[in-house]
Amino acid sequence: MPQFLDTQDADFEAAFSALLSAKREDSPDVDDTVAAIIADVRARGDAAVIELTAKFDRMELTPDRLAFTPDEIATAAAMVPAAERDALELAAERIRAYHVRQMPPDASWTDPDGATLGWRWTAVSAAGLYVPGGLASYPSSVLMNAIPAKVAGVDRLAIAVPTPDGQVNPLVLLAAKIAGVDEIYRIGGAQAIAALAYGTGTIAPVDKITGPGNAFVAAAKRRVFGKVGIDMIAGPSEILVIADKDNDPDWVALDLMSQAEHDESAQSILITDDADFAQLVAAAVDKRLETLDRRAIAGTSWRDFGAIITVRDLSEAAALSNRIAPEHLELCVNDPEGLAASCVHAGAIFLGRYTPEAIGDYVGGPNHVLPTARSARFSSGLSVLDFLKRTTMARMTPEALRAIGPSAACLAQSESLEAHGLSVRARLDQLNR
Amino acid sequence: MPQFLDTQDADFEAAFSALLSAKREDSPDVDDTVAAIIADVRARGDAAVIELTAKFDRMELTPDRLAFTPDEIATAAAMVPAAERDALELAAERIRAYHVRQMPPDASWTDPDGATLGWRWTAVSAAGLYVPGGLASYPSSVLMNAIPAKVAGVDRLAIAVPTPDGQVNPLVLLAAKIAGVDEIYRIGGAQAIAALAYGTGTIAPVDKITGPGNAFVAAAKRRVFGKVGIDMIAGPSEILVIADKDNDPDWVALDLMSQAEHDESAQSILITDDADFAQLVAAAVDKRLETLDRRAIAGTSWRDFGAIITVRDLSEAAALSNRIAPEHLELCVNDPEGLAASCVHAGAIFLGRYTPEAIGDYVGGPNHVLPTARSARFSSGLSVLDFLKRTTMARMTPEALRAIGPSAACLAQSESLEAHGLSVRARLDQLNR
Repeated sequence: MPQFLDTQDADFEAAFSALLSAKREDSPDVDDTVAAIIADVRARGDAAVIELTAKFDRMELTPDRLAFTPDEIATAAAMVPAAERDALELAAERIRAYHVRQMPPDASWTDPDGATLGWRWTAVSAAGLYVPGGLASYPSSVLMNAIPAKVAGVDRLAIAVPTPDGQVNPLVLLAAKIAGVDEIYRIGGAQAIAALAYGTGTIAPVDKITGPGNAFVAAAKRRVFGKVGIDMIAGPSEILVIADKDNDPDWVALDLMSQAEHDESAQSILITDDADFAQLVAAAVDKRLETLDRRAIAGTSWRDFGAIITVRDLSEAAALSNRIAPEHLELCVNDPEGLAASCVHAGAIFLGRYTPEAIGDYVGGPNHVLPTARSARFSSGLSVLDFLKRTTMARMTPEALRAIGPSAACLAQSESLEAHGLSVRARLDQLNR
Repeated sequence: MPQFLDTQDADFEAAFSALLSAKREDSPDVDDTVAAIIADVRARGDAAVIELTAKFDRMELTPDRLAFTPDEIATAAAMVPAAERDALELAAERIRAYHVRQMPPDASWTDPDGATLGWRWTAVSAAGLYVPGGLASYPSSVLMNAIPAKVAGVDRLAIAVPTPDGQVNPLVLLAAKIAGVDEIYRIGGAQAIAALAYGTGTIAPVDKITGPGNAFVAAAKRRVFGKVGIDMIAGPSEILVIADKDNDPDWVALDLMSQAEHDESAQSILITDDADFAQLVAAAVDKRLETLDRRAIAGTSWRDFGAIITVRDLSEAAALSNRIAPEHLELCVNDPEGLAASCVHAGAIFLGRYTPEAIGDYVGGPNHVLPTARSARFSSGLSVLDFLKRTTMARMTPEALRAIGPSAACLAQSESLEAHGLSVRARLDQLNR
């Protein structure tokens, strides 16, 4: 049974606050282990990576076997049935079309003082993408990480994917091929992050590392941050569905379960303005939980972290949504655009009754790497901007320096930075001579 | 004496690599202390903040004295001489004009399948800005952090600035007033970061924290990252000047010294295609180091981390610049725009002989909070984007779902996520009925 809340209950505020602050994930403290692994890879390079891969993935590698060969990739890709291949290609095409539009423009202008100002975007030279092995090895995540990088213009894109006991998901290799990935290494864990960040004899270092991973991978990414850039550290997935009574309860139930089935720590919340509809959805979820393949996981998530909140009206729903700041927000109402205007903190919004969140996981076009754990209050999903950086540009003419230089020198002096002021004054002195 | 390198020397590559990897800063390990302070502030709120402020800043506060009053701010602001006030206002106006142009557009379009896609930018609701007290208390940094936040539309902007022994820089308060800051607290250190991140009885929590600080502040920002957003963790400042022989050696020397005077760990590098000019600049630096107020700091920085590199030609200079990925890059050459096109990794570029870096510190318009320690390879200076987040939007019509839904269901199945697939198929079933 999920929690049932009603904004008209006397204890609603306390119960809702508790829901917001509930800790859903206990990350094991693996920081010391990870620090040792990173130090080992920095010191011994390929030898350390090979040893650690033998230990954790039971794979005996050599330096020339760290990377998949083009033949291996082609062979695996050829194993993928036509339906999946077509679906991956459609997804890639739509994701690419969406992300191309994100490319930000450069700018340059000359202001009334004669200063020419602007900025320029350039791509990160080399990026690494971590792809989990085993259960959580999702080809869709390969597309969602690799395509923005390639659209941004990343020259060299490397993937690290562990292949425990030699197992590899052919769809992951096909997705990498479709996305234009340049190198694929069969390594994982903290050792893969260290190899990408610092390089080894075989693997050249990258400038930015993205992609999901387990506690070891997350801890390693935190540790190498600064040496390289990283994306967010993602927590368990979440969905908030705001639905009026005019929805099929089973559709909403399935949308809630499509997050719950990810992980026992996932969270699915329904907000509705109709108490009877709330009960209908709860019943529909129970019915689906009798037969879903992943009913054990989904059921645990729903029991421990699921919630159904009944509100007086949809504006109350929007206010609660802003406090939740959900990763995924579905608006199954008559005027979803109108309601969306009031929902200002959310990773992604799915509008209307025919836009289940799962569309966004695969083929919608927007990225499915999104801020979790209320971080949509201050951060955004993955985009081409994560693989670009901006250089600001400024050029003063002598006239511009005459106009604004004295103010710079004045402020430098007030900050006791004499050389700053002199660097301006020396030029002004020559101009005034 | 700085290091002299020449790309024609046999050992150049080894010397340049050593220069790139030289560790310039030893951060003391204050992580345990900081963890204890954060836990204390979370547990005891105002009481902990007040105790820690008494201990570290020798200031006895009460909850109602944590914030400066409007009267206190007005009184301090009135103490600032007119020249400084005018300079701050000019700087604020130019910084605002630059950052307004950074506001990114929203987007919405309907694709051939009938899917309406897009994104929307919204501001972070509340932001906190840390301002160091004492020596490194720079009013210019208040403008550089606060103005982008206000341009982005941050509703509530709070400053934390320690006032050891009651000392406060009136220019900092005036800068905050000019920039439209809403709250100013006389607290500092890890306790200030904890108070901003988690809130206390008096201080409401914020969503994002930016601004420079000492090792305690940096460690605290790392620790609260995830609970709130943070900007970069800045290292010591750097400048790379690329200059041909047609420059006044004293101007270039002053530009080099304007970074060196910041900090003994700062780094100033000159690259020139003329060996005689290299010597002239070295001599000019030595001369300036006889009289500069901050000659002890600047001299140590120049001796320990300064470098003068002679190259065959300017294209070689650009290649080295890209490996350095400098925070500040000055191009004192005849065709600075042409050379800038080859310099793809830099935080900010200053073009031509009349654009000393110090202009950019105060009144140029672009932000002076920039990526250090080679992180310009993958990150950008502070901008309005740091105070905005993007929500992606998607709306499917029934026709769009019919067109692309089957591919989503196919991929969901291949990832063994049954509920994902069913959430799409249930809708398709109804549409096909």
